[in-house]
Amino acid sequence: MKTNVLILSGVLLSIASSGFAQEQSKYPEPMPMKPQMSEYWTPQPPVITPGTTTANAVMSPPSDAIVLFDGKDLSEWQNTKGEAAGWTVHDGVVTVNKKAGDILTKQSFEDFQLHIEWQIPENIAGSNQGRGNSGIFLQDKYEIQILDCYNNETYVNGQTGSIYKQTPPTVNPMRKPGEWNVYDIIYKAPTFTKDGQFRTHPTVTVILNGVVVQNNTTIIGTTQYIGFPKIIPHGEGPLRLQSHGDPSEPISFRNIWLREL
Amino acid sequence: MKTNVLILSGVLLSIASSGFAQEQSKYPEPMPMKPQMSEYWTPQPPVITPGTTTANAVMSPPSDAIVLFDGKDLSEWQNTKGEAAGWTVHDGVVTVNKKAGDILTKQSFEDFQLHIEWQIPENIAGSNQGRGNSGIFLQDKYEIQILDCYNNETYVNGQTGSIYKQTPPTVNPMRKPGEWNVYDIIYKAPTFTKDGQFRTHPTVTVILNGVVVQNNTTIIGTTQYIGFPKIIPHGEGPLRLQSHGDPSEPISFRNIWLREL
Amino acid sequence: MKTNVLILSGVLLSIASSGFAQEQSKYPEPMPMKPQMSEYWTPQPPVITPGTTTANAVMSPPSDAIVLFDGKDLSEWQNTKGEAAGWTVHDGVVTVNKKAGDILTKQSFEDFQLHIEWQIPENIAGSNQGRGNSGIFLQDKYEIQILDCYNNETYVNGQTGSIYKQTPPTVNPMRKPGEWNVYDIIYKAPTFTKDGQFRTHPTVTVILNGVVVQNNTTIIGTTQYIGFPKIIPHGEGPLRLQSHGDPSEPISFRNIWLREL
Amino acid sequence: MKTNVLILSGVLLSIASSGFAQEQSKYPEPMPMKPQMSEYWTPQPPVITPGTTTANAVMSPPSDAIVLFDGKDLSEWQNTKGEAAGWTVHDGVVTVNKKAGDILTKQSFEDFQLHIEWQIPENIAGSNQGRGNSGIFLQDKYEIQILDCYNNETYVNGQTGSIYKQTPPTVNPMRKPGEWNVYDIIYKAPTFTKDGQFRTHPTVTVILNGVVVQNNTTIIGTTQYIGFPKIIPHGEGPLRLQSHGDPSEPISFRNIWLREL
Repeated sequence: MKTNVLILSGVLLSIASSGFAQEQSKYPEPMPMKPQMSEYWTPQPPVITPGTTTANAVMSPPSDAIVLFDGKDLSEWQNTKGEAAGWTVHDGVVTVNKKAGDILTKQSFEDFQLHIEWQIPENIAGSNQGRGNSGIFLQDKYEIQILDCYNNETYVNGQTGSIYKQTPPTVNPMRKPGEWNVYDIIYKAPTFTKDGQFRTHPTVTVILNGVVVQNNTTIIGTTQYIGFPKIIPHGEGPLRLQSHGDPSEPISFRNIWLREL
Repeated sequence: MKTNVLILSGVLLSIASSGFAQEQSKYPEPMPMKPQMSEYWTPQPPVITPGTTTANAVMSPPSDAIVLFDGKDLSEWQNTKGEAAGWTVHDGVVTVNKKAGDILTKQSFEDFQLHIEWQIPENIAGSNQGRGNSGIFLQDKYEIQILDCYNNETYVNGQTGSIYKQTPPTVNPMRKPGEWNVYDIIYKAPTFTKDGQFRTHPTVTVILNGVVVQNNTTIIGTTQYIGFPKIIPHGEGPLRLQSHGDPSEPISFRNIWLREL
Repeated sequence: MKTNVLILSGVLLSIASSGFAQEQSKYPEPMPMKPQMSEYWTPQPPVITPGTTTANAVMSPPSDAIVLFDGKDLSEWQNTKGEAAGWTVHDGVVTVNKKAGDILTKQSFEDFQLHIEWQIPENIAGSNQGRGNSGIFLQDKYEIQILDCYNNETYVNGQTGSIYKQTPPTVNPMRKPGEWNVYDIIYKAPTFTKDGQFRTHPTVTVILNGVVVQNNTTIIGTTQYIGFPKIIPHGEGPLRLQSHGDPSEPISFRNIWLREL
Repeated sequence: MKTNVLILSGVLLSIASSGFAQEQSKYPEPMPMKPQMSEYWTPQPPVITPGTTTANAVMSPPSDAIVLFDGKDLSEWQNTKGEAAGWTVHDGVVTVNKKAGDILTKQSFEDFQLHIEWQIPENIAGSNQGRGNSGIFLQDKYEIQILDCYNNETYVNGQTGSIYKQTPPTVNPMRKPGEWNVYDIIYKAPTFTKDGQFRTHPTVTVILNGVVVQNNTTIIGTTQYIGFPKIIPHGEGPLRLQSHGDPSEPISFRNIWLREL
């Protein structure tokens, strides 16, 4: 699989596809790493209280949005094999089904504005990264983390609002389990040089519960669980929502829409 | 006044302060211009319908915001002479008083996230730029236009959502008179070279009624009614709200807060 | 011709191509302007003396360069009609022939590093813009000015080293007529939104005689003789060298090469 | 020492200085890493031949440059203890003295254009990173690598022209030992948010022997021998030239000058 091959090589580098197998034998590979090498716990972002509005007030999508989930069905989504998305639609929301794996939009996108709401269940259990873990992969490459960070500390570049294992959020405006959190994400896709480096980096502004937590942040590569970010040239790509497989209760989403910019 | 002197010279240039008077006599000035030279009517941005929410639902400020107007008083504001701001506070909103002129925040800012809500009165009259005209000057230099653009055409770089006389909004998501429009503005201040040019340009993302209408747009200079944008080196600056002096009913504001980024 | 149509509309705007003729009749056009409205004479950049090296030392192109002129022929160039370029090759240099008009590279480019040397003739006459005037149009859209600015004042955004009628050079390191000036230009092409605005601006670094005079400067639109810069979406484009038609002696070029970045 | 403390914490993070000791006891540190984890050997940049000019032609500095070394003395330099710089001046060049350690400019800088020439001795020995190793630290933080890469392979993000352990050069235009290599480096300093993140990243354009090998590349943090780049807020800083302590012959420098931009 293409991505697996690419992952063998490196950070901040693109991979020449031709002749790669031969080069494997001549040149050394970077020494393997552990996840804990890229986990930073300090300084913890300040905890703030976001604004409140009428309980469960939901703003409808603008008329030029692509509605990705309106509470009724997952017709805009599929699983990683291109089959029907197996998450559970009920009561106007969609809930992660860990057996069904990640789900991706059928459509691919370049620059966009994304609105997505998500809820940590009231009876969430676990701690650190094992508590309400999910994530939104922009263009299937760059993860904006989702985690219950309400009275739950973790490494700061793994908090909600972080570009996963890259840049922590400036503040922590999480709502508590049982309430709806809202992400408004403004994303600009990268361009690449002929050499496979970034010609222009991807950038992202993340607004969580009305609070800017990433301000046109430069994304420096893919968001790797282990090791350095990678530069992997790509064109348009889908959104991916992560099924993390935590042992506790699964999280839910609603009111998902996107405007191409 | 410093600004007046600077305005004599030009676009995309900074002004060396020393010896300026002498240079006046030796070098020609750019030929004067008319306002209509920088007014572009095409292409008109698509009109879209923004999302709707519970009538008059107002989201409270986050806990780390500087509240600039909470419905009670104008203690955070002053007029252009540094005196008390003379606009009218009533019913939890503040309404322009055209005799009182523009109002400015007492505090100055660099980078920020601004939330501000504004309402065109239901009985608005007039047309083109003479209909609900106001504006928000970021750092007292760069105007984000406010105008009733609901069934009211004007030059596109003078519409609501435009960086005035520079960049039109990508779409027109205005609500109709009597409803509240919401601006969420994310602003990054410029830096300047020793020569008075932009070292890094100011940039702005403007979200109007939940819809991105400026996506990290490069601001190319001050927003001039007549002629070219100017590059005027400056440090931190206040917000200014414009009293445009239209003959019709004045507009109102509410729920103004700002987070320094 | 496509470009002519686009030029009718405006600055900082892109032009929707469909239905444009109809819109002409409904909306006003911006009021016409004069060239002198965009000519700024102050502050004049400091005059400095660039480094000197062995007389007529020419560095050969690197091995991965596209050699555009090696002193022998104009086989890489054509005139604006796509015919043979009619400038005069002699003594290892090429001299402007004003009857032959501008010349363009046959190849088109995106991002590049350009090296080009040029000489104002020793017996140059005239003053202001009428003295050794030429220019290099990057992607046939954005002019880096060429002019004899050795003891010849002009408006600063029309000097050698300026992005024409946009941004003046930070200093003036011109060599005198009869000596060779050297431009090293590093250019990054723009990308555009679906609405025809800049998604990312073109940028340029200009090194004149070894001295940085534009430092990754943001280009704000096409370089217009009259009026505001325009935003005209485009893909790759050729280099254009200007035959300005001055009444005095024509300028010469040598050692032109380019590396695609 | 301030820098040592900061180095304890992490990548892509700034360090709150107050209360840091206490936090040490509560939160885990990232797991230690090895140098080989950030060494990438593929793809190797293409080897190209740079231009040649008259042997030993040296261009004199422009008149507005700060001359840092003109062949006579090291009066603009000091060692890491603020004492006299102990490298060897002879024959118009300065040669590394490994016992004397690194040398730094006495002056500090923000944005600049730097010109510096360096020579690998003809009788160089060793291989990989142990062959003519030195480096230029911009603002004492970000290393542009110097190494004999003429017929000497190493990890690509450690080659001459690389931002050390970050971004490899696009090509390899090294001259052979005994010839002079020329770096022209255009650097823009970072700005930082109040939270200690990059507000704007540092960027660098590197021209090696007349060939662009870094094109306004985004620097993502300090250039660490071990582990991830760090974000360490700083103001202006000096240049540092590295005494690497290789067992072989030391390298030499000449004609060093800088223009503040």
